[in-house]
Amino acid sequence: MTDRTRVRRKPERASYERAELDAILDEARWCHLGLVRDGQPVVLPTIHGRLGDVVYLHGSPAAGFVRHAGEPVCVSVTLVDALVLARAVRNHSMNYRSALLLGHAALVTDDAEKLAALEAVTEHVTPGRWSESRPPTDVELRGTAVLALPIGEFSVKRRSGPPGDDGEGDFPAWAGIVPVTTVLGTPEPAAFSPPGCPPPSWAPPS
Amino acid sequence: MTDRTRVRRKPERASYERAELDAILDEARWCHLGLVRDGQPVVLPTIHGRLGDVVYLHGSPAAGFVRHAGEPVCVSVTLVDALVLARAVRNHSMNYRSALLLGHAALVTDDAEKLAALEAVTEHVTPGRWSESRPPTDVELRGTAVLALPIGEFSVKRRSGPPGDDGEGDFPAWAGIVPVTTVLGTPEPAAFSPPGCPPPSWAPPS
Repeated sequence: MTDRTRVRRKPERASYERAELDAILDEARWCHLGLVRDGQPVVLPTIHGRLGDVVYLHGSPAAGFVRHAGEPVCVSVTLVDALVLARAVRNHSMNYRSALLLGHAALVTDDAEKLAALEAVTEHVTPGRWSESRPPTDVELRGTAVLALPIGEFSVKRRSGPPGDDGEGDFPAWAGIVPVTTVLGTPEPAAFSPPGCPPPSWAPPS
Repeated sequence: MTDRTRVRRKPERASYERAELDAILDEARWCHLGLVRDGQPVVLPTIHGRLGDVVYLHGSPAAGFVRHAGEPVCVSVTLVDALVLARAVRNHSMNYRSALLLGHAALVTDDAEKLAALEAVTEHVTPGRWSESRPPTDVELRGTAVLALPIGEFSVKRRSGPPGDDGEGDFPAWAGIVPVTTVLGTPEPAAFSPPGCPPPSWAPPS
């Protein structure tokens, strides 16, 4: 925890435990990357992978975010678990687990690290696909940029449990939580998908 | 569309149509807010509401983001529709609809606008709750800060459809999409929820 990552608002919801950070990073299939362009914050959705103490992001070498290598970035990861409905408007909330990483992302230039990073990103979002699908060629590898963000400054913030209630007496409003989950649906094969090749085992059966 | 919001990477996925922006803003129950603190980008998950041409955000007057009123901010909204599995690693992708808004958020000081904004945020995330639950008191209203971001500079980016395939011959890998949806679960009443008050009609029945 640093002064920049210390959670000031509702600090009881904060954590600075690596295990909690890793669990959020690994469960979330996508994240948001924050950059600064000429003083303007820009937030881009993207996917990530983690190998030990490094978070990897990838993109086209022509993409805007790659030009920010070496500059400060922020990776924000959010898992929403429930809508929290209270008897008072002001006590409405969300149950969530979120992580914030600050640091400088560096362009990965070593081919072996680049391949390992792309494998980590691929396996994170679509487990098994690194070995099931056709691996990157040298040309494709050169056509992909990878950024490495070492895990250093971070914070975790989360809420769970029922809504708050400030003594609303017998005010007649339902209170509780409505769970939110992200689910995968039945795989839809492309017209050119080879017969006899099954969809990934982690996708729901059709 | 401005030079700052022109989508450079895969411009065929871009849109600058207000109707598409509004549809994404209105469907997404949460967003990510980008700020700059001492040169460091910071990305915070939050909820939003839209009234016409203005996006409203709220928080504690003590929260960090409120101190950025008048400074450039970014609101990023992302809806993920599918994982896209291709026969080649490099053609893996996501189907998504995303929006990026740039601008300066102003602190709302007018009480009527503040109430309308809080109603918009509440109704957006939890429809019906503004009238079902106990409205904010004057003290609560003073204890809540609202930021208004006029819709000006924005871009929409989206992908849909099957994976790409660069002539992988008879490479034996399944290809297609795995739909991703965010679903609400069965409401779980708090211990103090008054008997006879039903959960919202938009939540699945128990």
